[in-house]
Amino acid sequence: SQRYRITLLPGDGIGPEIMAVTVDVLKAVGRQLDIIFEFQQAKIGGAAIDDTGDPLPPATLEICRNSDAVLLAAIGGWKWDNLPSQQRPERGLLGLRSGLGLFANLRPAKILPQLIDASTLKKEVVEGVDIMVVRELTGGIYFGQPKGIFATETGEKRGVNTMAYTESEIDRIGKVAFETAQKRRGKLCSVDKANVLEVSQLWRDRITKLAPEYPDVELSHLYVDNAAMQLVRAPKQFDTIVTGNLFGDILSDAAAMLTGSIGMLPSASLGASGPGVFEPVHGSAPDIAGQDKANPLAQVLSAAMMLRYGLNQPLAADRIEQAVLQVLDKGYRTGDIMSEGMTLLGCRGMGDTLLTELE
Amino acid sequence: SQRYRITLLPGDGIGPEIMAVTVDVLKAVGRQLDIIFEFQQAKIGGAAIDDTGDPLPPATLEICRNSDAVLLAAIGGWKWDNLPSQQRPERGLLGLRSGLGLFANLRPAKILPQLIDASTLKKEVVEGVDIMVVRELTGGIYFGQPKGIFATETGEKRGVNTMAYTESEIDRIGKVAFETAQKRRGKLCSVDKANVLEVSQLWRDRITKLAPEYPDVELSHLYVDNAAMQLVRAPKQFDTIVTGNLFGDILSDAAAMLTGSIGMLPSASLGASGPGVFEPVHGSAPDIAGQDKANPLAQVLSAAMMLRYGLNQPLAADRIEQAVLQVLDKGYRTGDIMSEGMTLLGCRGMGDTLLTELE
Ligand SMILES: CC(C)[C@H](C(=O)O)[C@@H](O)C(=O)O
Ligand SMILES: CC(C)[C@H](C(=O)O)[C@@H](O)C(=O)O
Repeated sequence: SQRYRITLLPGDGIGPEIMAVTVDVLKAVGRQLDIIFEFQQAKIGGAAIDDTGDPLPPATLEICRNSDAVLLAAIGGWKWDNLPSQQRPERGLLGLRSGLGLFANLRPAKILPQLIDASTLKKEVVEGVDIMVVRELTGGIYFGQPKGIFATETGEKRGVNTMAYTESEIDRIGKVAFETAQKRRGKLCSVDKANVLEVSQLWRDRITKLAPEYPDVELSHLYVDNAAMQLVRAPKQFDTIVTGNLFGDILSDAAAMLTGSIGMLPSASLGASGPGVFEPVHGSAPDIAGQDKANPLAQVLSAAMMLRYGLNQPLAADRIEQAVLQVLDKGYRTGDIMSEGMTLLGCRGMGDTLLTELE
Repeated sequence: SQRYRITLLPGDGIGPEIMAVTVDVLKAVGRQLDIIFEFQQAKIGGAAIDDTGDPLPPATLEICRNSDAVLLAAIGGWKWDNLPSQQRPERGLLGLRSGLGLFANLRPAKILPQLIDASTLKKEVVEGVDIMVVRELTGGIYFGQPKGIFATETGEKRGVNTMAYTESEIDRIGKVAFETAQKRRGKLCSVDKANVLEVSQLWRDRITKLAPEYPDVELSHLYVDNAAMQLVRAPKQFDTIVTGNLFGDILSDAAAMLTGSIGMLPSASLGASGPGVFEPVHGSAPDIAGQDKANPLAQVLSAAMMLRYGLNQPLAADRIEQAVLQVLDKGYRTGDIMSEGMTLLGCRGMGDTLLTELE
């Protein structure tokens, strides 16, 4: 039997609830496929701030490093919103990404037929949409130096951040993106702002140079403003999208919202080696925390992504994804995706239904 | 009678066609309201490159400076796509913006009831949407130093751009935004990425400090990724949006596409004093250039914005906007906004219909 050490980072808000459901689902699938998960838990975000004053205590990073994969739920909440920016929950997330070298962030935005009515877009526009955004996650303006708020000669303040990419940073995310497109429908759209930004010119140049190594992938380029338009105008044109950290942040959220149900969307963050981090796209939803109202499915699907991309257990991943679809087929819904005629469940109830389905 | 010197920059592609229609419309309104327009014309973008090798010849900037307002059509096209970036048509546009100090870009995205079916979003989601994006246009990452492609110590290349704002740059665009919101529905949403970027922290700080001067405006803040989501999820929540150059580029295009008919959308770029530039949001559409198929209405509505924001002639602006709505009410359409049962017109035909309507 296969054995994996999984670090759980439940974080804040609804995090602990959706994580509990997901652990049960993993155990159930593990029993069936003879996979043993050893879970270890650590604190991040607001929970870690309350405990230690640090959104990413060194011990947490250490535990994550010593594991095969990390399952993260959600971080942040009003409680920590007024802390100075260096001490806020989000810093824990950024520290985790860079600390583990997670340069590739995969964010699928797939319309599920069962939930198509949740989209604000017309059915014919979003039917069949299946986009994978490959976002660079440890470079660009998120980490570029210099950054800060400086005094100018005239005494006024100037806020500064630096959007920078080196050739090797672009190449490694480009390779992940081409390989991802190869496993999908063979279309890759690289998004930049090369008509204005030098960093984007280098980006476009390197991505273009990689293309001949992937003759089965059709490469195209879009400016980021046009990409934002095209996602709204005709999202079916996209298969795989590759872009930098900031543009990926914006476009993956726009793409996610096309589905109308971001409570359903998982993500994977991967490095060159070492554990990946798998987490839902949605936030910590402090308004419904502790009320058994949260939708655990994005977290459960993040565990499926962990099995597929992190642990190379595609069968187990399939099984979880199937169970989620079947539960939806049977009409079970949490509040965020509820519609007429369906059966409303809480977080725990949805978990139990999934477990029944898996057995 | 009032007299204005207007510089026309027809630019490339469909530019000359839609400009010709607009000039006729302005003349007609001028006759009725006793306004005399003195038109002078100059080259920009590809047309200027072909002529002089420079996308913004000094003579063009000079003519613009010596006028009361500038009406720009569209620039760019395949023909110039492979030039080195410093010599491309877009540089002419960026040069014009900074040369005239046009720090405030106003981009309305308003759903017209006559064209609501053109939206890819559901009717109930977009009905009544009326958003004004106030985009900072001469700062941020578009112009920040240092920028370029540099060699690193290891010999590989690194592309660099700098997103920077000073307090005074933020304050002046903030004031325009608050004043704009005051004249609209009194709601202002400032968009930044203050959870990651220092430049955004300064942005949020300054915008917040301006708020007490505008007690009749309700200020809120959104992160740019969330703003992109919210535009898709529930666009009616927005009235006026203020944001930096890059975020404004992306979000104003996303907002524009909510309408489904970007052939209808004008924009205004204004400085502290001196002439503003008024131009459609759409591009130069080289694929239909010279075929009398272009939709001139965004250009015509840009002339209306010129009358309203640049020349303080709201009556003349109203008259043009009314005529456009009436022509749509009567079922006249160009190809880009055509739908069943409507009457298809070319660019010139649409212009003639407008002139009839105005008389
Ligand atoms: C919380 C924030 C720092 C983060 C980001 O900007 O990357 C989030 O928006 C995301 O996309 O995971
Ligand atoms: C053409 C390009 C330089 C320009 C910009 O990025 O500002 C355009 O996208 C716009 O929004 O006017």
